[in-house]
Amino acid sequence: MSVTSRNPATGDERVLDVDETTSEEVAHLARRAHDHVFDYAARPLTWRATMLGAMADELDAAASDLVDLAVIETALTRPRLEGELRRTSFQLRFFASIVTEGSFLNASIDHAHDTPMGPLPDLRRVNVPLGVVGVFGSSNFPFAFSVPGGDTASALAAGCPVIIKAHPAHPATSQACFEALRRGARKADAPEGLVSLIFGLAAGEALVDDPSVAAIGFTGSVAAGRALWRRASERPVPIPFYGELGASNPLVVSRRAASRRASEIGRGIAGSVTLGVGQFCTKPGLVFVPSTTDGDTVVTELAEVIRELSPMTMLSSGIAEHFREGLRALSEISQCRPLVNDGEGIDANVRAQLFEVSANDFASSPARTLRDECFGPTALVVRYDDRDDLLRALDATDSALTFSAFIEEDDDESWLVEYGSTKAGRVIVNGYPTGVGVSWSMQHGGPWPSTTASWATSVGAGAIGRWLRPVSYQDVAQKLLPELLRDDSTVHVVRRVDGVLQGL
Amino acid sequence: MSVTSRNPATGDERVLDVDETTSEEVAHLARRAHDHVFDYAARPLTWRATMLGAMADELDAAASDLVDLAVIETALTRPRLEGELRRTSFQLRFFASIVTEGSFLNASIDHAHDTPMGPLPDLRRVNVPLGVVGVFGSSNFPFAFSVPGGDTASALAAGCPVIIKAHPAHPATSQACFEALRRGARKADAPEGLVSLIFGLAAGEALVDDPSVAAIGFTGSVAAGRALWRRASERPVPIPFYGELGASNPLVVSRRAASRRASEIGRGIAGSVTLGVGQFCTKPGLVFVPSTTDGDTVVTELAEVIRELSPMTMLSSGIAEHFREGLRALSEISQCRPLVNDGEGIDANVRAQLFEVSANDFASSPARTLRDECFGPTALVVRYDDRDDLLRALDATDSALTFSAFIEEDDDESWLVEYGSTKAGRVIVNGYPTGVGVSWSMQHGGPWPSTTASWATSVGAGAIGRWLRPVSYQDVAQKLLPELLRDDSTVHVVRRVDGVLQGL
Repeated sequence: MSVTSRNPATGDERVLDVDETTSEEVAHLARRAHDHVFDYAARPLTWRATMLGAMADELDAAASDLVDLAVIETALTRPRLEGELRRTSFQLRFFASIVTEGSFLNASIDHAHDTPMGPLPDLRRVNVPLGVVGVFGSSNFPFAFSVPGGDTASALAAGCPVIIKAHPAHPATSQACFEALRRGARKADAPEGLVSLIFGLAAGEALVDDPSVAAIGFTGSVAAGRALWRRASERPVPIPFYGELGASNPLVVSRRAASRRASEIGRGIAGSVTLGVGQFCTKPGLVFVPSTTDGDTVVTELAEVIRELSPMTMLSSGIAEHFREGLRALSEISQCRPLVNDGEGIDANVRAQLFEVSANDFASSPARTLRDECFGPTALVVRYDDRDDLLRALDATDSALTFSAFIEEDDDESWLVEYGSTKAGRVIVNGYPTGVGVSWSMQHGGPWPSTTASWATSVGAGAIGRWLRPVSYQDVAQKLLPELLRDDSTVHVVRRVDGVLQGL
Repeated sequence: MSVTSRNPATGDERVLDVDETTSEEVAHLARRAHDHVFDYAARPLTWRATMLGAMADELDAAASDLVDLAVIETALTRPRLEGELRRTSFQLRFFASIVTEGSFLNASIDHAHDTPMGPLPDLRRVNVPLGVVGVFGSSNFPFAFSVPGGDTASALAAGCPVIIKAHPAHPATSQACFEALRRGARKADAPEGLVSLIFGLAAGEALVDDPSVAAIGFTGSVAAGRALWRRASERPVPIPFYGELGASNPLVVSRRAASRRASEIGRGIAGSVTLGVGQFCTKPGLVFVPSTTDGDTVVTELAEVIRELSPMTMLSSGIAEHFREGLRALSEISQCRPLVNDGEGIDANVRAQLFEVSANDFASSPARTLRDECFGPTALVVRYDDRDDLLRALDATDSALTFSAFIEEDDDESWLVEYGSTKAGRVIVNGYPTGVGVSWSMQHGGPWPSTTASWATSVGAGAIGRWLRPVSYQDVAQKLLPELLRDDSTVHVVRRVDGVLQGL
């Protein structure tokens, strides 16, 4: 079956020059990638870094064409897509620097020694790549969380061949990005098939099932993620599944912050809720505002900006329809009061909406609708009377990717920082959660349902850790050890030697 | 229902002064433990280390009584149990040192800075404890992998309260170990209920299901592990499940090694196969020996020692019956030739057996029986003609905890080291896999079916990583940050600052 590219803004369709990938082709690509596992892992770290850099260069060189395609396929704005692509090539170069820095290998050498439990042999440990990684591109970030995105970059950095399943919302962008990656790989003399691209739902399922595939990276909804995770776990040989799923990220405005910055905060929240048409996994979906007149101002400003910003075009008519279903479900909850509700839109075009509920009703209602992510330009404002009321409502939220708190320097609600760390992977003070920086200290992940593995991150240096496992070598002769575990290694990376970190 | 302690050597039973834990009691203990999560995580690392040391001291002080109980309940030898207990208190002290060393926190500070993708905010990351950890004690290590074992020690070191499900094969030992841990906790002024003990299958299931429990550590069979893993994954809020399961660990003798050390190696393998009545997860279950006359000598010596060592008493009559079922299944495979087969034994008493199969038959047979772990004093000898024959048979094995190779310095088969790293978590040259040292560089784990998470280890410093998740703090004021993320922190641990490791 041919792959079709749709323009969500106009409804125009165009048939691409590629077909959905058959399960036989998936098996072939997976076997070919698997054949490269040894070779790729054995190449010098500097070579691996060079290849990632070459891929970044090819993306930059093709930037104009890639953004043109993505504008048509996603209806996201050109500045947003240009920024996302810059971030994507930056991310590839960032992982190149992580590869050569080498601490991700967690190398450790314990020379033979005596202990209270008896003598221990010579023991040396290093992280090795898992093998072929399957990546599921996301709908909402056609570059940064798709074909050339963080999962691909971190898996390649870890030494794993990658097979990417293109998201059906932007197949032409996916194909063009893949070609840029492949040009980079070829320029670096990488083996053919180190990176592959597949299309179609059935091909994605075949990828999860394939015995040559060792791990999966996924960005998408809770429902799809949970189904694929189960599939990966129920294989004869289960494999790790790293899903970055949905989140209804809390954002709390303290009474004092509302009293001093009501308008600024209200307008800021509106910008964050509607950024990229609300299609960010870090969108603040639950906005906790005090039931004071200052709180009223926050909400009024928030509602006003949201009303002004409508209508908008979502990534696809299917995603828009799912958004409308979410809005209808919220409307049907009697305690849920619509604040902005100017119609639904049609096809991929939607109108932003805003709802309000009391903290007490939120805490006491068992309705999943109040807690589940509604992907798109909307938020649920939760109005609280006092700290106990706020805490009960926060306790009734799910864990999330982010937790934001607007507090003052002299605020009584600074406990929100520590509390936030129990609910999310990133705690933000006086800022908005949309926007996830690529850096050493970034954690993009959190407890279920925001991810399937809260110890992992899909953004930042730590993302490489998902595609590695440690191997220890006991009493292995120097010449048979991986080079960086030898006593006279010339690979300059941090190593722990007899318990002490060395080589910085 | 009362808990009963059985002596596997005599069949004697005695009713203990404890009952199986009801699901209501499990819920109570889990809630109580959960109430301590904040307090425990917030205490200084030095306090945490002191408590682990106090627990080790109490175990040492009670060593004589603990070993007496374990001898009766497990039929393991006194020297073995004394050594295991020494290792267990050593392990608690080792984790105390890891806590104060602090690199497990993976602290990282990125000051606000400009990047090609725009300015980044101040971002700081540290690992936080997951919350209450449930631990399933093993049958085969009543100390080191049970109540006071590695899962408990590493979870407490990570800052997590622990609830331990006692293994039914040694309830009195479990209770006495728990009391020692509790005495240590009380001496350190730990909150009551930081460590709890439960009994019974239903209580274990309730533990996995409990909403207050954040993660599970398990040591046991593939079947039980997979069932509990599924249970943990299918909860409304899934939790991580770290199962150290079964493994049929390969051990390869090269042609040249056989020609030079046949007798020594044959006798050594026999010792490793029958150590602790073959009840080690690292037992070499698949022994690859060349089809040469030297190989015949290896096998003859191996068989002779195994024959001499029989009969033996296993940990329980249930485990012995399961072992006999495994032996019968092997006997029923026509290509499988019995080498030692002097009867079955009764109750908990068994006779060691040894089987042989050709590498070709092993590689071409789909029978799971040839690959699955047979827990107890037996091994399957796989005879190979040449390198291709060996490689085909090795490719047909499952992944395992360990991979051992007996090779000479001038051997043609040194490729076995690199090959082993693709199949197991620990590669051993000219040594036996039984015996797992507690150290920085130990990796005790490997791909499925040896564990449910190949990135994790249940022994060694890395074991602490299972009970942690990272949290990033964005633009959080110094005074509201966890102390070790502040610019002027007085907690002296390794931190990455603006991408560079510091403080060593």
